[in-house]
Amino acid sequence: MLPLTFDSISFLRDQERIFFVGGEIHYFRVPPDQWAQRLRLLKEAGGNCVCTYVPWLLHEPEEGKFVLDDPALDINRFLKLCAELELWAVVRPGPYQYSELLNAGLPSWLLKNYPQVNACGIDGSPLVWPNGMFISVSYQHPDFLRLTQRWYEQILPILAAHQIDRGAAVVAAQIDNELMGVHAWLGSWDYHPEVMGIGREEGRWPQFVQQRYGDLAGVNEAYELQAGSMAEVLPLAEPQATSLAQLRRVMDYRAFYFEQVAQYARTLVRWMRENEITVPLVHNCASPYMTGYFRETVERCRGELLLGSDHYYNLDLDWDQNQPSPKYASKCLMSMELLRGYGFPPAVFEMPSGSLSDWPPITPSDAACAYGLNLAVGMKGVNYYVFAGGENPAGTGTTCDLYDYGAPVSPTGEIRPLYEAVAGFNRLLDQQRWLAGAEAVSDCRIGYSLDQSRHPRKLPVDQKLLMPPDEAWSFMRKGLMLTSLCAHWSPEMIDLSSDDILNNIARPLLVAGSTVMAAGEQRRLVQYLQAGGQLILAPVVPTLDEHYRPCRILADYLGGVEQQRCRRDAPLVRVGEIGGLLINGGLFEFAHLPAGAQVIARTQLEPAVVGLKINPPGGGCAVVLGFHWRQSRREHERVVHQLLLQAGGQPVIECDNPNLWALARTDGQQTMLFILNLFSSPMNASIRFRDSVHQNQWQTLPPIKLGAMEVQAWSPIVGCIWRSSAASGDSGVSA
Amino acid sequence: MLPLTFDSISFLRDQERIFFVGGEIHYFRVPPDQWAQRLRLLKEAGGNCVCTYVPWLLHEPEEGKFVLDDPALDINRFLKLCAELELWAVVRPGPYQYSELLNAGLPSWLLKNYPQVNACGIDGSPLVWPNGMFISVSYQHPDFLRLTQRWYEQILPILAAHQIDRGAAVVAAQIDNELMGVHAWLGSWDYHPEVMGIGREEGRWPQFVQQRYGDLAGVNEAYELQAGSMAEVLPLAEPQATSLAQLRRVMDYRAFYFEQVAQYARTLVRWMRENEITVPLVHNCASPYMTGYFRETVERCRGELLLGSDHYYNLDLDWDQNQPSPKYASKCLMSMELLRGYGFPPAVFEMPSGSLSDWPPITPSDAACAYGLNLAVGMKGVNYYVFAGGENPAGTGTTCDLYDYGAPVSPTGEIRPLYEAVAGFNRLLDQQRWLAGAEAVSDCRIGYSLDQSRHPRKLPVDQKLLMPPDEAWSFMRKGLMLTSLCAHWSPEMIDLSSDDILNNIARPLLVAGSTVMAAGEQRRLVQYLQAGGQLILAPVVPTLDEHYRPCRILADYLGGVEQQRCRRDAPLVRVGEIGGLLINGGLFEFAHLPAGAQVIARTQLEPAVVGLKINPPGGGCAVVLGFHWRQSRREHERVVHQLLLQAGGQPVIECDNPNLWALARTDGQQTMLFILNLFSSPMNASIRFRDSVHQNQWQTLPPIKLGAMEVQAWSPIVGCIWRSSAASGDSGVSA
Repeated sequence: MLPLTFDSISFLRDQERIFFVGGEIHYFRVPPDQWAQRLRLLKEAGGNCVCTYVPWLLHEPEEGKFVLDDPALDINRFLKLCAELELWAVVRPGPYQYSELLNAGLPSWLLKNYPQVNACGIDGSPLVWPNGMFISVSYQHPDFLRLTQRWYEQILPILAAHQIDRGAAVVAAQIDNELMGVHAWLGSWDYHPEVMGIGREEGRWPQFVQQRYGDLAGVNEAYELQAGSMAEVLPLAEPQATSLAQLRRVMDYRAFYFEQVAQYARTLVRWMRENEITVPLVHNCASPYMTGYFRETVERCRGELLLGSDHYYNLDLDWDQNQPSPKYASKCLMSMELLRGYGFPPAVFEMPSGSLSDWPPITPSDAACAYGLNLAVGMKGVNYYVFAGGENPAGTGTTCDLYDYGAPVSPTGEIRPLYEAVAGFNRLLDQQRWLAGAEAVSDCRIGYSLDQSRHPRKLPVDQKLLMPPDEAWSFMRKGLMLTSLCAHWSPEMIDLSSDDILNNIARPLLVAGSTVMAAGEQRRLVQYLQAGGQLILAPVVPTLDEHYRPCRILADYLGGVEQQRCRRDAPLVRVGEIGGLLINGGLFEFAHLPAGAQVIARTQLEPAVVGLKINPPGGGCAVVLGFHWRQSRREHERVVHQLLLQAGGQPVIECDNPNLWALARTDGQQTMLFILNLFSSPMNASIRFRDSVHQNQWQTLPPIKLGAMEVQAWSPIVGCIWRSSAASGDSGVSA
Repeated sequence: MLPLTFDSISFLRDQERIFFVGGEIHYFRVPPDQWAQRLRLLKEAGGNCVCTYVPWLLHEPEEGKFVLDDPALDINRFLKLCAELELWAVVRPGPYQYSELLNAGLPSWLLKNYPQVNACGIDGSPLVWPNGMFISVSYQHPDFLRLTQRWYEQILPILAAHQIDRGAAVVAAQIDNELMGVHAWLGSWDYHPEVMGIGREEGRWPQFVQQRYGDLAGVNEAYELQAGSMAEVLPLAEPQATSLAQLRRVMDYRAFYFEQVAQYARTLVRWMRENEITVPLVHNCASPYMTGYFRETVERCRGELLLGSDHYYNLDLDWDQNQPSPKYASKCLMSMELLRGYGFPPAVFEMPSGSLSDWPPITPSDAACAYGLNLAVGMKGVNYYVFAGGENPAGTGTTCDLYDYGAPVSPTGEIRPLYEAVAGFNRLLDQQRWLAGAEAVSDCRIGYSLDQSRHPRKLPVDQKLLMPPDEAWSFMRKGLMLTSLCAHWSPEMIDLSSDDILNNIARPLLVAGSTVMAAGEQRRLVQYLQAGGQLILAPVVPTLDEHYRPCRILADYLGGVEQQRCRRDAPLVRVGEIGGLLINGGLFEFAHLPAGAQVIARTQLEPAVVGLKINPPGGGCAVVLGFHWRQSRREHERVVHQLLLQAGGQPVIECDNPNLWALARTDGQQTMLFILNLFSSPMNASIRFRDSVHQNQWQTLPPIKLGAMEVQAWSPIVGCIWRSSAASGDSGVSA
């Protein structure tokens, strides 16, 4: 077999652009005599790789006593089988596994003998999961690191022997699992006093702070403290931030925590390399909203680590929507675009093929729809979690004895209807391999600021910010992105901290502005405008930099624009000729008109100015709207559509059904149009699209009919080539 | 026309049991020359009643200047037309309207000239809605009452002249709108110092407290205060409750607030009667979770006021699920059963036929599914909100200029696909009129404690309660109710504070126990067991009464059972032979075994006892489980199924697809079986059911096939007589 590599566009086998198609099969949950049958089923379903955890919990059941040759846990034999069947393998040796295993896959003796490794809340007390599903450790605790290193030294050479360059199956290895989840989901970061060095002059946290602000005087100034020594500079609990100085301290601890995670990741990467692992290393971000938390990890492990993401839509009753809804799709779009922004081929390392809950169910047609929509938003790699169910080794399950998971293949090896949904989607990937090299056809851009995604939600200090960063992030997703999709624009997402925004001046740029924006990002927006760019910014022009210090680079360039909260007369706004625009959030009026500015939006009754068009020096144009919204009304679509047209945008798709989304991808030779019905009702539409492959001529598709929760893939030449409902059999699901 | 009346089973026209089928049409939003056309469309769609707000905002635009003869607002002519077309009418003259009107329908001069009527937060500052969608007044402020009374005196005689007993159309009038919503949705009750008399010796609040505890000494004892006078006994903000005495004070203020609302409602009822309104009075509870808040209002207005509920499932992106999902259905079931428990024929006074948001959409097939599921859970009256869109009078809209609402009839009078969903469902109601007199066929009972639904969520004091009341309420809904539905049992809900639970000893009773349970409810459960009842109680036996004072009536009767938090070894529990039961919440072990108690559940690894079977004196049997769950796994269904069978339960339905729900209704002569697929995928099933009309013989239905999000109604004799997808046309929705 050839090794697996990747670049920023896709995965590669030798020089060939391919989709990575993994299936999660746990050797420790499947009887050894059935391993081959499960692997064959994966291959027959179109998979090219098997992925598995290698649980520390099972392989070191007593401290220092490693079990590596038990037939039920014989990873050597399992990986040999993979090679024999010509399946790649990705191994995930932890230390964390999660996987609904006891202690999240950590050995019980670790917690019993080394309670000091437990992560701590801000008051220094251990972080404990009430339902026992997880264990939170302090990643960099010396005991945890030492024991992890010993585990790695035992297991990695075994795994290394099965690497592709030695003629075997392993093409990648994963470090840890869903980093930060065990802390974040408890609503706390790790504040382990020893590990983080809190209250210790030479501790990690004081040193981090000192490096940032030079000396104690600088720290005291930044935090408005009168600390007598660095040891007295303590972190602050997030809800306690009521001033900008306190917010600065809260955000510094966040950045510090992310940096610690990055150092832990870097350590695991180093140990992987020291223990003969030469294949690419990977990691899975637990959830799209956490992707921004990985900025430090991505930077520290640049060139060594591929970050992917997990894309669940329904793990239990209280999950949002329980279906591959538009909300889910917008999360997936954001996730794929953020990974692309980091420079990775977007991959979904845990794609739901089943769920830890039997109910609400993952149905084949929902699943096929989810797979299709992920492809539509740029997915280049997928790993079905789990592909085959099994039985938990005695006493190691946290959700059940049988890890059935409603998987495509049952614990006893039978094929279920979901298998066909997986296989049917994989056939599409196989038949349309060129899509691995394709990129989105876009007609507008949404600039994003990762800082916004890292900001805590709803802090008391928010009152001091016209527009808090987290609200701007929410507006970016639920306003700018959803509205442009509903208006049938195709946004490309661009990291404002990169120079990418300067590479395509012709296309209009939408930005959700917060009161806080990094000086570098403000400067880049100025450069974009100076170069003739077309900017649509809402709801505020930033006035603070990333350190919450005054910074009006953009505001000054826009003629000294100033905004203030608008005491509204009635909650509607008029933009140009479009009246009655519902605003779901804050409303900000302009204190005065910069010279030459043109008023384009006013409040309903009294004429407060809430929208300006400004032509700053350089030929660019900025539209600044003093309001934000969640996508809910045709008026929102009309405003965005009109502003994008006025900014010179040229839509590539026209569709007469505002409830459908359509997105195209092309490799320059071929184009594929994805049509998404993410509602539980059938939908019809007429669709035209402008194909760059055909001299940008408008192509009209035949009348479109989609079933409930259906994604279709259309080739402008061949016609409809894939329907998620057909791929899933569409026949109804029995017990 | 004959008048509309009601009893506890249904609405009545003369002696005939009928469905109330209303459609909301706002005369003030439709051009007067098109009123007749809209009313005819409603009648043709099967409606028997038109409902409309009568907005104070529009009819008293300046203080004391009433506009009653403007042709666009000519309510006389509108109501005359209703009578001519033989449509009943329900009028909703406020004072509140909501209806996406400016100030929620209150006159602007009221807020400008009488700012003192604004409701207040606990710190005495005005409660203000950030987005201007609502205005919160203090209902019993003397100025607000005086001005409301003047409005009533102007408008009610006009409406009274159109009552059915005077040969006209009006069969009912509504007081106010969605009481308490304007406070509750802001996250605060009203603490208006003057109105509530906070800090005033003779104020309403001190008097309420004094009445409850006799004298200042009693109050100080109850609240653990050292107040020198009643004026010093202040309310406590809910999140500040950290002791039982503080919780008592918090809950007393809640009860006091609910009582004030009841007195306000009583005042409005009195003014209605004083101003010639003789028809039944109605009110709509905003949301099923608030139904319990109306206990005092229902008691104070007994015999004068019919309470219904509003059942939206999708008003914007951030609404739960955006579809008529199982979560929505379980809310509807609870809502209908609680209204039945109050003694009313369950009615949905605002049933979504459209939404204030264009997106996510209300599709015809989703809507038809929602209508069908509401009927399946006992709905006897429905009012489509809104039936016809229209244009907001200038400057009075808060969401848009055009109040399109995606309604079945457009603002210009065209019929939309949703019209057929409404008409198709109304045809079912018309053809199966006997269903108006039908009751649920049930095979088990779930006892509920309204107190639990009135308890705040997640207070700090919760740590002092093994199982806080709000968590028990959540377990009742997401555990007991959902699991029994998924296991194809048909629960009837019974108010534990009524003697109803003693009326049917044969049927097993499921109860979600909280640490807190009223002494009367505990006593009634003892009586139930003494009479031979079969009780299944989880997760705790109460130890406090409704005033948070020690009360072990039930625990002592059960042999002195005592529970304590279980330090779990692993998060699974085994019940009898059923292993690996996932527990999503707290786990409580028994401190000792009462004499004769039988162990039926243990934790996974170490043998902590978490389930007992107890046979107390009298022949009854109590199963006490020390854990709770959210429905998620087949194991949950198996445990509930087995326990209900062991308790002598005899299921009336068998179904081999655990994702479908089936519920039957009968009037003793005929039976109708409703089959609900509330997922976005097609479903198949085999279903048998035991029809009391046919000597309880098992009837086997032909193979069942349901489309995505489809409800079917089956007659065991005739076969399938209604499918929501067919009723809605199922043809796809265009712009």
